[in-house]
Amino acid sequence: MRITVLAGGVGSARLLAGLVRVTDPTELTVVVNVGDDERMRGLHVSPDVDTVLYHLAGLEDWERGWGTTGESYAVQERYAELAAKAGQTATDLQDWFTLGDRDLATNLLRTRMLDAGRTLSEATDALRRALGVECLVVPATDDPLRTVLRTADGHELDFQEYFVHRRQEPEIEGVFFRGDATAAPGVVDAIATADVVLIPPSNPVLSVEPVLHVAGVREALRTVRGTRVAVSPIVGGRALKGPADRIMRALGHEVSPAGVARVYRDLIDVFVIDEQDALHAPAVESDVLRTVVCDTIMRSPEDAARLCKTVLDAVG
Amino acid sequence: MRITVLAGGVGSARLLAGLVRVTDPTELTVVVNVGDDERMRGLHVSPDVDTVLYHLAGLEDWERGWGTTGESYAVQERYAELAAKAGQTATDLQDWFTLGDRDLATNLLRTRMLDAGRTLSEATDALRRALGVECLVVPATDDPLRTVLRTADGHELDFQEYFVHRRQEPEIEGVFFRGDATAAPGVVDAIATADVVLIPPSNPVLSVEPVLHVAGVREALRTVRGTRVAVSPIVGGRALKGPADRIMRALGHEVSPAGVARVYRDLIDVFVIDEQDALHAPAVESDVLRTVVCDTIMRSPEDAARLCKTVLDAVG
Repeated sequence: MRITVLAGGVGSARLLAGLVRVTDPTELTVVVNVGDDERMRGLHVSPDVDTVLYHLAGLEDWERGWGTTGESYAVQERYAELAAKAGQTATDLQDWFTLGDRDLATNLLRTRMLDAGRTLSEATDALRRALGVECLVVPATDDPLRTVLRTADGHELDFQEYFVHRRQEPEIEGVFFRGDATAAPGVVDAIATADVVLIPPSNPVLSVEPVLHVAGVREALRTVRGTRVAVSPIVGGRALKGPADRIMRALGHEVSPAGVARVYRDLIDVFVIDEQDALHAPAVESDVLRTVVCDTIMRSPEDAARLCKTVLDAVG
Repeated sequence: MRITVLAGGVGSARLLAGLVRVTDPTELTVVVNVGDDERMRGLHVSPDVDTVLYHLAGLEDWERGWGTTGESYAVQERYAELAAKAGQTATDLQDWFTLGDRDLATNLLRTRMLDAGRTLSEATDALRRALGVECLVVPATDDPLRTVLRTADGHELDFQEYFVHRRQEPEIEGVFFRGDATAAPGVVDAIATADVVLIPPSNPVLSVEPVLHVAGVREALRTVRGTRVAVSPIVGGRALKGPADRIMRALGHEVSPAGVARVYRDLIDVFVIDEQDALHAPAVESDVLRTVVCDTIMRSPEDAARLCKTVLDAVG
């Protein structure tokens, strides 16, 4: 069974940690959001790509959701100290963005490959192999793509500025994407030829939309021959993690499985909702062909594997 | 007493660790060789600048001569592992060049400042202040300058390739400098207005020549009103550290204090030789005005301070 996953950050990464336990990784392609990518201290960081890679490699810090376990912070601490004393401005300093030593090695290597002229998908593939990840991991695009948030008080914030630096506190009025991005090699094909296309429980607006925004992706998803499945990131009226609930409300979406299903209308066939939202199934079914109701909470890779097995059994 | 030092690597750095103990650091300017600078894993490394800074900041690893004490290597180890698995070529990998975590923070910050458009002297000054170094530390030039070694078998090697990677083993036939370098702001003035210009016991060909090669430096040194002093890096017929003896022999210089004095002819007034070379004083004096004979071996910062005091007393 060929599976293609459209992945964002931690919710997607957790699901993937389970998915590779119940499927053949060589049949799996993960297309990852890069709207969050940024230069941090001169390095090209791809936060969603790395979160996905670390979870697939079994190196993830499950609770925290980013970085690796057993991480040290020697460079971060020293850099912050030096940069502050060297009179770097707060903007230059970016000390709110934590990069552990192992994480820094990943980003140094990625930046080095990019600076040597390799594309982001080539660099990602090299890192994937280096980390011993067997499935394909492809950035949605090799082109610059920026997720930008417009605040209620009229400012524009880059994703990391909003998400990490401002702790998702500013009131958001709109989200848009900057950059004319074309799908990276293999992306459209991976969607078009998949038996199952899976959208994990990630933020529909901030994590999944930027992937759908890439030229060719939405079209491929509309005409795919396989089954398209999404898992609701809204459970019990709240986002499992992160600001998906507040962002959805701010943009006029209903904060419920039905609200998410409506965002994905025409793009999915099956919608997976948590058992505590069983009563929402009828509302969801006005926008999708079918609902699967099960325990969707992933407290561990084993939980994630169980969820994936349930979902695949239901669509297989 | 205003002192300007033309500094190379470890021999210079050790002398400077002593000099700041016996003089007013605010009267001291250190002009540093940057012919060894290179991009390593995408970062701009300035090995002589950093060795000098770490010694001036009291962070040096005295025995090893580079890096800082209490250093960790988390990023270096992880990077080497990932890069090898990612199929980086040996040339890309550069794992023979060790950068500890704290050292990496220095180089990340330098690179970030350079990439943001600051000059090397601006970046060096910011790092100097960040490390709490009170004297001025200025790269000889802000322009690209490359020390290149021509081997007996006809190859050209960059300095780090020769010095670190090939462990100074190749037989050298010539040394030249690539790049049209002009003195960085303040360099010519610091030499011209100094009461004492000091050339520490560093490699005359590989560490001092590239400083002298920068347009304006040799001329300033020829016309300086102060006293020009050099300390011999050759003691008892051998280099104190590094390949200065073999390089001098290969280039046709006599490996002795007199041989070094001849390299510096017209550029220095006083030459300091070790007490074990006392018999060489007459030969040296055919090329310089005066010889100072004393213990020049620096086993510790205290030794270095004693040497500096002797030298300054002799010329003051």
